Amino acid sequence: MSAIRQTPSKSLMLFSGRAYPELASEIGGHLGVEPVPTSSYEFANGELFVRFEESVRGCDAFVVQSHTAPINTWLMEQLIMVDALKRASAKRITVVAPFFPYARQDKKHRGREPISARLVADMFKTAGADRLMTVDLHTAQIQGFFDGPVDHLFALDLLVEQVKAKWGDRDITVVSPDSGRVRVAERWTDKLGGVPLAFIHKTRDPSKPNEVKANRVVGEVSGRVCILVDDMIDTGGTIAKAAETLFASGAAEVIVTATHGVLSGPATDRLKNSQVSEVIVTNTLPITPEQDFDKLTVLSIAPLLARAIREVFEDGSVTSLFDGNG
Amino acid sequence: MSAIRQTPSKSLMLFSGRAYPELASEIGGHLGVEPVPTSSYEFANGELFVRFEESVRGCDAFVVQSHTAPINTWLMEQLIMVDALKRASAKRITVVAPFFPYARQDKKHRGREPISARLVADMFKTAGADRLMTVDLHTAQIQGFFDGPVDHLFALDLLVEQVKAKWGDRDITVVSPDSGRVRVAERWTDKLGGVPLAFIHKTRDPSKPNEVKANRVVGEVSGRVCILVDDMIDTGGTIAKAAETLFASGAAEVIVTATHGVLSGPATDRLKNSQVSEVIVTNTLPITPEQDFDKLTVLSIAPLLARAIREVFEDGSVTSLFDGNG
Amino acid sequence: MSAIRQTPSKSLMLFSGRAYPELASEIGGHLGVEPVPTSSYEFANGELFVRFEESVRGCDAFVVQSHTAPINTWLMEQLIMVDALKRASAKRITVVAPFFPYARQDKKHRGREPISARLVADMFKTAGADRLMTVDLHTAQIQGFFDGPVDHLFALDLLVEQVKAKWGDRDITVVSPDSGRVRVAERWTDKLGGVPLAFIHKTRDPSKPNEVKANRVVGEVSGRVCILVDDMIDTGGTIAKAAETLFASGAAEVIVTATHGVLSGPATDRLKNSQVSEVIVTNTLPITPEQDFDKLTVLSIAPLLARAIREVFEDGSVTSLFDGNG
Amino acid sequence: MSAIRQTPSKSLMLFSGRAYPELASEIGGHLGVEPVPTSSYEFANGELFVRFEESVRGCDAFVVQSHTAPINTWLMEQLIMVDALKRASAKRITVVAPFFPYARQDKKHRGREPISARLVADMFKTAGADRLMTVDLHTAQIQGFFDGPVDHLFALDLLVEQVKAKWGDRDITVVSPDSGRVRVAERWTDKLGGVPLAFIHKTRDPSKPNEVKANRVVGEVSGRVCILVDDMIDTGGTIAKAAETLFASGAAEVIVTATHGVLSGPATDRLKNSQVSEVIVTNTLPITPEQDFDKLTVLSIAPLLARAIREVFEDGSVTSLFDGNG
Amino acid sequence: MSAIRQTPSKSLMLFSGRAYPELASEIGGHLGVEPVPTSSYEFANGELFVRFEESVRGCDAFVVQSHTAPINTWLMEQLIMVDALKRASAKRITVVAPFFPYARQDKKHRGREPISARLVADMFKTAGADRLMTVDLHTAQIQGFFDGPVDHLFALDLLVEQVKAKWGDRDITVVSPDSGRVRVAERWTDKLGGVPLAFIHKTRDPSKPNEVKANRVVGEVSGRVCILVDDMIDTGGTIAKAAETLFASGAAEVIVTATHGVLSGPATDRLKNSQVSEVIVTNTLPITPEQDFDKLTVLSIAPLLARAIREVFEDGSVTSLFDGNG
Amino acid sequence: MSAIRQTPSKSLMLFSGRAYPELASEIGGHLGVEPVPTSSYEFANGELFVRFEESVRGCDAFVVQSHTAPINTWLMEQLIMVDALKRASAKRITVVAPFFPYARQDKKHRGREPISARLVADMFKTAGADRLMTVDLHTAQIQGFFDGPVDHLFALDLLVEQVKAKWGDRDITVVSPDSGRVRVAERWTDKLGGVPLAFIHKTRDPSKPNEVKANRVVGEVSGRVCILVDDMIDTGGTIAKAAETLFASGAAEVIVTATHGVLSGPATDRLKNSQVSEVIVTNTLPITPEQDFDKLTVLSIAPLLARAIREVFEDGSVTSLFDGNG
Repeated sequence: MSAIRQTPSKSLMLFSGRAYPELASEIGGHLGVEPVPTSSYEFANGELFVRFEESVRGCDAFVVQSHTAPINTWLMEQLIMVDALKRASAKRITVVAPFFPYARQDKKHRGREPISARLVADMFKTAGADRLMTVDLHTAQIQGFFDGPVDHLFALDLLVEQVKAKWGDRDITVVSPDSGRVRVAERWTDKLGGVPLAFIHKTRDPSKPNEVKANRVVGEVSGRVCILVDDMIDTGGTIAKAAETLFASGAAEVIVTATHGVLSGPATDRLKNSQVSEVIVTNTLPITPEQDFDKLTVLSIAPLLARAIREVFEDGSVTSLFDGNG
Repeated sequence: MSAIRQTPSKSLMLFSGRAYPELASEIGGHLGVEPVPTSSYEFANGELFVRFEESVRGCDAFVVQSHTAPINTWLMEQLIMVDALKRASAKRITVVAPFFPYARQDKKHRGREPISARLVADMFKTAGADRLMTVDLHTAQIQGFFDGPVDHLFALDLLVEQVKAKWGDRDITVVSPDSGRVRVAERWTDKLGGVPLAFIHKTRDPSKPNEVKANRVVGEVSGRVCILVDDMIDTGGTIAKAAETLFASGAAEVIVTATHGVLSGPATDRLKNSQVSEVIVTNTLPITPEQDFDKLTVLSIAPLLARAIREVFEDGSVTSLFDGNG
Repeated sequence: MSAIRQTPSKSLMLFSGRAYPELASEIGGHLGVEPVPTSSYEFANGELFVRFEESVRGCDAFVVQSHTAPINTWLMEQLIMVDALKRASAKRITVVAPFFPYARQDKKHRGREPISARLVADMFKTAGADRLMTVDLHTAQIQGFFDGPVDHLFALDLLVEQVKAKWGDRDITVVSPDSGRVRVAERWTDKLGGVPLAFIHKTRDPSKPNEVKANRVVGEVSGRVCILVDDMIDTGGTIAKAAETLFASGAAEVIVTATHGVLSGPATDRLKNSQVSEVIVTNTLPITPEQDFDKLTVLSIAPLLARAIREVFEDGSVTSLFDGNG
Repeated sequence: MSAIRQTPSKSLMLFSGRAYPELASEIGGHLGVEPVPTSSYEFANGELFVRFEESVRGCDAFVVQSHTAPINTWLMEQLIMVDALKRASAKRITVVAPFFPYARQDKKHRGREPISARLVADMFKTAGADRLMTVDLHTAQIQGFFDGPVDHLFALDLLVEQVKAKWGDRDITVVSPDSGRVRVAERWTDKLGGVPLAFIHKTRDPSKPNEVKANRVVGEVSGRVCILVDDMIDTGGTIAKAAETLFASGAAEVIVTATHGVLSGPATDRLKNSQVSEVIVTNTLPITPEQDFDKLTVLSIAPLLARAIREVFEDGSVTSLFDGNG
Repeated sequence: MSAIRQTPSKSLMLFSGRAYPELASEIGGHLGVEPVPTSSYEFANGELFVRFEESVRGCDAFVVQSHTAPINTWLMEQLIMVDALKRASAKRITVVAPFFPYARQDKKHRGREPISARLVADMFKTAGADRLMTVDLHTAQIQGFFDGPVDHLFALDLLVEQVKAKWGDRDITVVSPDSGRVRVAERWTDKLGGVPLAFIHKTRDPSKPNEVKANRVVGEVSGRVCILVDDMIDTGGTIAKAAETLFASGAAEVIVTATHGVLSGPATDRLKNSQVSEVIVTNTLPITPEQDFDKLTVLSIAPLLARAIREVFEDGSVTSLFDGNG
Repeated sequence: MSAIRQTPSKSLMLFSGRAYPELASEIGGHLGVEPVPTSSYEFANGELFVRFEESVRGCDAFVVQSHTAPINTWLMEQLIMVDALKRASAKRITVVAPFFPYARQDKKHRGREPISARLVADMFKTAGADRLMTVDLHTAQIQGFFDGPVDHLFALDLLVEQVKAKWGDRDITVVSPDSGRVRVAERWTDKLGGVPLAFIHKTRDPSKPNEVKANRVVGEVSGRVCILVDDMIDTGGTIAKAAETLFASGAAEVIVTATHGVLSGPATDRLKNSQVSEVIVTNTLPITPEQDFDKLTVLSIAPLLARAIREVFEDGSVTSLFDGNG
């Protein structure tokens, strides 16, 4: 007899980096599986180490990491986890990066710059990742940086529901904080039934690169509830300045919403002290107690990630989660 | 003696596909070199053939093709040329694609779509290209699709000069034809000294994908000369509709400008018969007599390409051609 | 619990390019499955688009395209389909190219030529193809151009049966139309029970490359039924000239047979107006009404392709379809 | 219907090179499967040929070769087998190389040398291997030369049991034959319950590279049974010299043990004629009758390889075979 | 100052494997350079070692090996040399393999076979080769197996000159020993001014694979001097049988010519004892005294290789050495 | 005219990460060139950015980074610098990493661990590095992790000179702190003229992994000056414990020497408070004022790196810097 025959089985295993283990646990709760016990620590000189405490041979691995500060450490930890899974004979490895690191460096803004988002995609591939799953990329083109399948999830419905529930009976204008995000704002206007659209126009002096001369509102905002939409809130500078400009132009209220609550440095203070009525984000990144504030609403992205992971594992359809637009 | 020593020399050679040989000739004229004589033809069943009539061993090759219709044929011809150069021992191969093919398919708009722009970048690499040179990519992220240096040139200054010369003394508003190009329009306003900015807001019914319900102008256009700016004019449908909307909103005149004059199908008729005062494009793509019309101004991109090629060959700086923004 | 366990299932899905959908349908009929509904169209400037209307996640995909004119368009369409399947998480992708494009450019005939058949094989790989299936490659070495499994099918039995049924009781000589196909003709003589073999010897003046001085028959053809065998009939020039030479040498009848009926340009006219008694091909390429003529017999390759696809899907043996010679 | 659905099955197939077919048969005996019948032979000029006599489509292939002399022939045979499996659509290919060839050339000892062990790892990958399985690498870092999973097995327990059974009641010192293997010897002392450790210190004149001036024992050996441990015995020169040095330092008895019994050239004579009491190796390499001698004990590695192969096939744990240290 | 500027120099270095060092020396003599001193030896267990005795940093390396028996050893030696050159920072590495190893396994003749010629090409690439140079490939398609430039040289002119000089005034027929080489024979007839062409037709019983039933001459040979042309003479079986068949058909004399004199096993005896008048080969492979015999003429390939190497180094044209057909 | 000809020039450019710019400056001082002005900073969320202020087109780039804490940040910065250089058309990129990050994770110590050193090597390659330069790798096999040239420099001579100058007239024993470094210690004994050798033997209970039971000195240390040699001092734990054990065994004095002074966490305190007489390291890593202490001697590695960079740039010999052992 020249062959041993068996019916194969397949197994889903969930792995969590140390940046935000609560997110992986929440995802696991929805899936009915716990993250694989893992030894992870930092050597005295900062080098990282991981070891999985159970056999992962043949598994369909989903490696969740949340790319918050210190971002390079967490990126490296995830890469090392992928390398360990590859060498331990995992069958398929999906990197789950709800906030894709370095997404803003997705092109050379000027000569002699890196394209770090492509570098990150290539490093995941090099380490051994077969697939990526992520939420609301800074630009959708980043999907094309990875040579393989990317499950690109959208938090739009989640955020829209929250806005509708609380502000849906007011006169709304959707506002893009700059000229590069108007297309995203347009998607919001459709979801909100065709409300008006505006954006903040920044003028620059061509002889002084990167210096903004003035902010002007283009579109109708006077007396209206302005929903300022962005993919992320980092230091909150752009958003706070935009809110000021809107109030100066007569806005009745300003609501800020973004998928990714990076909330670096002065962000929390800026928003807390602003006239903004509510700030809505998801937990693709952890919100520490220091970052939290009264006006902040945090929606959980875990149910969406769990559903997408299940579809991937069961050869279902991720696209179907978004009415064919995924 | 265990080695023969020599001082090397380096040589620039220019190659032209058959899509638009006049462009390569014009570039060669600026550089002082003629395209390498090449046998190129199509077999009866449509398969293409190329053979270079001179030795190309060790040369620094620049392969110019203009991706006009039949676009897949010209893309394949350029790939075959690159393959032949690689196998004939060219030292370095730069693909010059002034209009990057399939640039609009730079992401999955919905599930189960290709990312053809990445595929094209990968095919150039597979064939043997070391570098790319291109003009005004549909989105700058496409640079990141290629694993190697991309010289991304801008026609902005060329187009702005033409607009300034002819319309500079009028009250100008720069207009983006849709929500995705507002950032580009913003760059125009800076070059024109801080003029107003507007865009066309399209509303859609979320239950009917891809169907536009209404076009609204956001921004101030009444009584003004509107400069509608885009990266390309394909069938002219979006542009013509945008022009109509602008006139309906009281625009005094509408000028259309774009880097790439694709001018497919009904484009020429639509623009000729429109109220648009002038249409300005460059010759990254050939303009056939059938496509030409009175109101059309075609600026030559050849001097810019020639300068960039010279900088690449001589290890100069392409960035310097754009005030550090290349 | 650290893993979710399931028994996997596997699914075969068939995809069809637009070059010759009838072939994919016929294959599907034999397999009992319909090609996956697909949106495919051409933009105004010739760029292609595809989108699959059903989830393809985890499937074993077979992508059928027939590389007829416009051949570069259909090649590009198939590449884009493969890219879309890869990005949509198909588990395995087999390119089915019954007529392998650019197979004749399988070597550098002279310096500074491409090896386009290798380029095509590499482009399939780059797009995401795991495997190839094809019929009667111009030279069998092309299998080695692809870095992965190639299922190379043979139409020989199919063609031989047709010849035997109709001409088997006559005195047959198998004839190769030129010196490069004598080995193929020899295989025919074995299948026909050891009949004589002949070929057309072309003499050339070495100082005038590619110019044939004379055609001579080498071998016994006088008074015999000559079966002219080739892998493809393109413009029919070689074949028509060979038939003339055979009649001039006393052939009683001439039958022409080839796997691939390319039938470009003047082919149909040449063959219709020749003294040839019958022309036998398969439908690896579509035969349009304009290409068809009375003496033409077209055999369907679909049953063979369907059987091979089933063996691949079920981990059976393709070799067994050809008595161990596949 | 757009898909045919089935439950997949998986099959393990065992393949054997011609270097030492008895080992593969023994492994197969433990697994309950026979090596796949294979035609393997050498052409008159030394080129090798292989063909599998059964369909291997979709199988989980384990390709066993023992890298004994002529080592380059057997390496090439295994590479060709892997290539044939890849092209015949095996699903997964594991190279089983109990003695990894060229493992000693795992670094550049001086400038302008190859790193042949990396080259071998890369050649396996190039041919199509997905995974490696090997026993007691010369240095464990070689695992990192392969871009994929490596199952690294240890013969330590097997060898220790034999030593314990026969010499366990004596006063033992474990001895490393040179300064580079002390870590391995230390592992032995732990397994033997904390017995003393010694090694042979070689001094060299820095001005005469590679020339040893003197051998000194560092550590306590007088009156003790010395277990000389190494990963392999090649020509036996180092080992014989070490044994002499030990006896000169008062050793009571010397036992030699190594995983790999290469036993090249004068090895058998040297060991037979030495004062060494016993030489213990495994059969990762065949022991020919000419190599065999009275004092030689050969332990079979086949049970360990069979268990590891079964774990790999069934997605079990290879690590568990070694108390978590695999 | 941010850069140190210099004018580069380039250097050609020649490296020789141990299979046939006389060939590299002869090439070096024509070029005016000696092969780089190299330590090469075999360890006791057959593993090979090389080290270059001079710095090779930045050189243009040509690595000459002659793939005679033991062929796998010499192949491995050349691969190791390439690896060592890559790691020692050679600038460009050209593998010179006058007789390409495993060229006859250039396709799967039946299912489940390797394509070893592709494997060899890939292994050269993996080791670090940038380019290949070879003479008269078994099939020209093998050029396409390497992903890079291949300088394919032809010995045809050299062999034709020898034949013309000695047999040019006789009535010549060029004969292909089998159906697969008729195209090569046709090239000879053109070079000899349009002389007749013949070949040996072998018939087989399809039910008994690989068994030849009969040899028939197709074409005119009676009373003529037959030039039997092939790419290589291995065991001489095919050639000796062909010669017999020719004499049985009335041939006056038979001359045998081939580029590669493999002359394995019984070849010398067969040819010495045959009625063949002369056997002409080149020294792409060494001819040992045991292989030599009176009727054997060996022409040196070294001048051709030296000229080609010089063209490659100096960015000249290799094609020009063959009237544009290289 | 079909080509423009020029004589090329080549230029060396030096780039410095922000971890330890003084080292790059010192190297530049020896070479006579300043590091290229570079904008490097961290965004608020920790993402890094770099941009070179001068054109780097065509340069031979050497990118110096010192992998001190925060090590993942500095690794990522260097990768981003390499990406930016690749995309800005640098001709050749050499990563200079005097202390190779993650070198200790060079193998799987147990199952399901990463091999992070290979991952780091692959990431450098992925980013665009052509070559590596490093000093005293933890294990020399790491050279083989990189697919390209590695210039591996040795600080041995530098350290030996310092020891000889100060302690050369005493009775010296070289001591390895554990069983894995005895080979390195042996090299020291040769350089010191054949002095005795000892090492610390650690015994472990096999049932309690990674727990050391006892430390024993093997070799002669009583009354002697012990030179404890290692590749790096991290937390100083092993070294401090080894020193204690040596004093307990009667050592007269203990000198500690290592190439890399990592000096993490408690290292400085441990060494300062120990009986050790002198600690000698190089500045492959920066020594902060907090890390410094009286007994610490820091030798500069910059002259060695500068000489090696010059050899690489000028196609000289790095091996020659180490008497043929590089």
